[in-house]
Amino acid sequence: MNSSSLTISLQWLLSLIFLIIFPTCATATPSKLPRLSTILRESETFSELISEDFQTFFYNQTLDHFNYRPESYYTFQQRYVMNFKYWGGANASAPIFAYLGAEAALDSALTGVGFLVDNALQFKALLVYIEHRYYGQSIPFGSREEALKNASTRGYFNSAQAIADYAEVLEYIKKKLLAENSPVIVIGGSYGGMLASWFRLKYPHVALGALASSAPILYFDDITPQNGYYSIVTKDFREASESCYSTIRESWSEIDRVASEPNGLSILSKKFNTCAELNKSYELKDYLETMYAVAAQYNHPPKYPVTMVCGGIDGAPEGSDILSRIFAGVVAYRGNRSCYNTSVNPTETSEGWRWQTCSEMVMPIGRGDNDTMFPPSPFNLTTFIQGCTSLYDVPPRPHWITSYYGGHDIKLILHRFASNIIFSNGLRDPYSSAGVLKNISLTVLAIHTVNGSHCLDILPANSTDPEWLIMQRRTEVEIIESWITQYYADLDATRKRTMFEY
Amino acid sequence: MNSSSLTISLQWLLSLIFLIIFPTCATATPSKLPRLSTILRESETFSELISEDFQTFFYNQTLDHFNYRPESYYTFQQRYVMNFKYWGGANASAPIFAYLGAEAALDSALTGVGFLVDNALQFKALLVYIEHRYYGQSIPFGSREEALKNASTRGYFNSAQAIADYAEVLEYIKKKLLAENSPVIVIGGSYGGMLASWFRLKYPHVALGALASSAPILYFDDITPQNGYYSIVTKDFREASESCYSTIRESWSEIDRVASEPNGLSILSKKFNTCAELNKSYELKDYLETMYAVAAQYNHPPKYPVTMVCGGIDGAPEGSDILSRIFAGVVAYRGNRSCYNTSVNPTETSEGWRWQTCSEMVMPIGRGDNDTMFPPSPFNLTTFIQGCTSLYDVPPRPHWITSYYGGHDIKLILHRFASNIIFSNGLRDPYSSAGVLKNISLTVLAIHTVNGSHCLDILPANSTDPEWLIMQRRTEVEIIESWITQYYADLDATRKRTMFEY
Repeated sequence: MNSSSLTISLQWLLSLIFLIIFPTCATATPSKLPRLSTILRESETFSELISEDFQTFFYNQTLDHFNYRPESYYTFQQRYVMNFKYWGGANASAPIFAYLGAEAALDSALTGVGFLVDNALQFKALLVYIEHRYYGQSIPFGSREEALKNASTRGYFNSAQAIADYAEVLEYIKKKLLAENSPVIVIGGSYGGMLASWFRLKYPHVALGALASSAPILYFDDITPQNGYYSIVTKDFREASESCYSTIRESWSEIDRVASEPNGLSILSKKFNTCAELNKSYELKDYLETMYAVAAQYNHPPKYPVTMVCGGIDGAPEGSDILSRIFAGVVAYRGNRSCYNTSVNPTETSEGWRWQTCSEMVMPIGRGDNDTMFPPSPFNLTTFIQGCTSLYDVPPRPHWITSYYGGHDIKLILHRFASNIIFSNGLRDPYSSAGVLKNISLTVLAIHTVNGSHCLDILPANSTDPEWLIMQRRTEVEIIESWITQYYADLDATRKRTMFEY
Repeated sequence: MNSSSLTISLQWLLSLIFLIIFPTCATATPSKLPRLSTILRESETFSELISEDFQTFFYNQTLDHFNYRPESYYTFQQRYVMNFKYWGGANASAPIFAYLGAEAALDSALTGVGFLVDNALQFKALLVYIEHRYYGQSIPFGSREEALKNASTRGYFNSAQAIADYAEVLEYIKKKLLAENSPVIVIGGSYGGMLASWFRLKYPHVALGALASSAPILYFDDITPQNGYYSIVTKDFREASESCYSTIRESWSEIDRVASEPNGLSILSKKFNTCAELNKSYELKDYLETMYAVAAQYNHPPKYPVTMVCGGIDGAPEGSDILSRIFAGVVAYRGNRSCYNTSVNPTETSEGWRWQTCSEMVMPIGRGDNDTMFPPSPFNLTTFIQGCTSLYDVPPRPHWITSYYGGHDIKLILHRFASNIIFSNGLRDPYSSAGVLKNISLTVLAIHTVNGSHCLDILPANSTDPEWLIMQRRTEVEIIESWITQYYADLDATRKRTMFEY
């Protein structure tokens, strides 16, 4: 590998790392983030938390909805889970809440996405959770290894196929339960939030409305400035503590300085108590960058991770040097450990999402004209395309998302088209920079909280929830109620017409 | 082939024949219908009629928009034609009228679909005509023979890919001409009308509105009774002449009776002056059935083909027997010929459309509990699937159209979703039985005429046009004008917001 292709690979790797910090809401506790295995023990308790009310089913799903080639007819088993406990039944046309799976196995959503269970009783709703293709137990071609092995089998792994899957499963369930008149509300967060809003746009005959939590649907093409994400991370830290922000901002050149000394990497490894010796200074920088980004993205009550990190940095003994302060931030956030693991362990989510971002979900997140606390790192599309192509054999289609789903001039386009979508955001979430933050019409609404973080509104309600969060959720529930009320009135009018006019 | 599979094949062939009587509006004169080659000379003059204002271009189109397999990236040259003569230009955000090609080569649309040229001056519109993939000069895999050869290459030939093609071409044109703010109105007839309405539903960010002429979007699943089509054919004939209707109604058993005599087929061949000796009585019956259906579908002024046929039948010399009357109807409609060709000559359109109806465009047109003037011929889905599968190796997906585009409870679903679609119909068109005939909302509108026929409103305006047709077109133009006026106001408001708020 010559030096120029190495440069390309590094730049591209950096671009990619930013993109894979994008977990589903179900993994909204940092626990299940790639490279943050701390609280993984929590996730092991998922199966215990899931009550008997959740029943697992499998749907015989079509591999390729959009073509009629012999291979298109292959099928795979797609997992979905239902909870009938609260449902008012088909005769009452009681609603269906459908969680649209994102880039993770479905399991964590069953307990992690509280919005469904928390509101099921009030709505007498049937709860449905559908797993995204190529994740969890919904894998075509027999195994994840086979499915992701080559460009031919990977090629069916994309959002258009995924939402067509959801349409089929929901239509099947409605038919099976004789619940054709039950309104469906689709709910998703982050990437799953995008899917929820896109699902309402593409399949209005399947879903009456969508709650799209923290869906950065405007982070495509040039709609959102590339700095959006890291500008908000920076703002979050600066608002928490000006000195913390300054320390972080100064730390990068300090890391470089130490790294360039004789035995510099060894010094850094000791300073940060890394489990393995650092090979490159960017391993440390990337580790820290990810930590700050994740802390900001999931900066939720009651602990507020940004405050935790800054508490460590600011609270280090007086006279501490910059890197000691930074390390104190790490300890404050991660807790006392025998050592800190800076290496990236690939997970199902990181591997799947890397493919998705390298094929269609090309979000140009970077740091161009840099106004952030991080070192500059412009997003370079050419480099990105080269990196992805060499990794996956096929090039990304960076404009497909806006071609298929739109995004440009969204208010102009959707003001008099579409209805019944809530775009919810927390403005402390870096992804809110690419969220819909203004109402588009009377029923395509933007609900945001100044202090909210990524997907916070659809996480389980908690006794420690602040008032503004309680209010946000209440508003969302009232809006969904109004959609359903309107729908029943329309349904009633239709039936009367059918009865008297024909 | 044993007798039961022969029965299946025959039933299936009959089902299919009904489905392939479905030409685009551009072929709305019977001239270009399969098996009606009479006026083919007319179509040869197309190239002379097309002025120099029409410029032909080719777009490097993606074969498979919905997957990321290596084969998905194959490209083909897609033809589109533009006419700049009337365009007000990008600076004025002058509109774009886009004709969405249907199941035929594009050529005939340039002169055959008059709505665009007829209204271009008033709207200062750029005219764009885009050819449908796998027709005309827009063929992947090098040639039509290669493209249709096997299940793998045919499999990309479908409506979802076709409208994604249109989105890409239109976005490319708008970008190239710096006309991002020019509103696009998509226009199509028959299958192309379905595509136009579906395009507005799926790509509202590309098209501001759609004129869907004679689009039977409700002829899927069980939304429309299978008899719909032939009930209207029957009604058309009965309204033209009760005696004509009775004669036709009685003719089928008479054909069967004669056919069962010694030398019966020979007698029928002579009686109907067929160019080739009939091999089966259904060849004659199918020939007649198609003639009646086509006469009804294109029963337009000033000649009114149904009136022509019935003029022949009713005007036969007194004392003529039933079959002589029927033959007099053939002569009245087809003109005096040395012989009448009852055999089916496959065309690009009939072959392409047969695949389309055998894969996704499964319209259950038949005659079940028969109230028509035709012999019973129930649509049998099982038989249909068997026939298509043996022909094309892959089975149809009879429910995909309603899964992807909707159709059930259309008023309930679209009343508060979507905008800017005109569904235009003529009630004498048998396909109007599956058209949208009632307004869905203030901007999703049904415009029909009692006496209109298939796609009549988008054919070229003519000095002989009756008042009701002139009025229908004027109403459509006024509606489209109102969409565009509203759009400019919205655009203006958006720009002001951008200027003053940010």
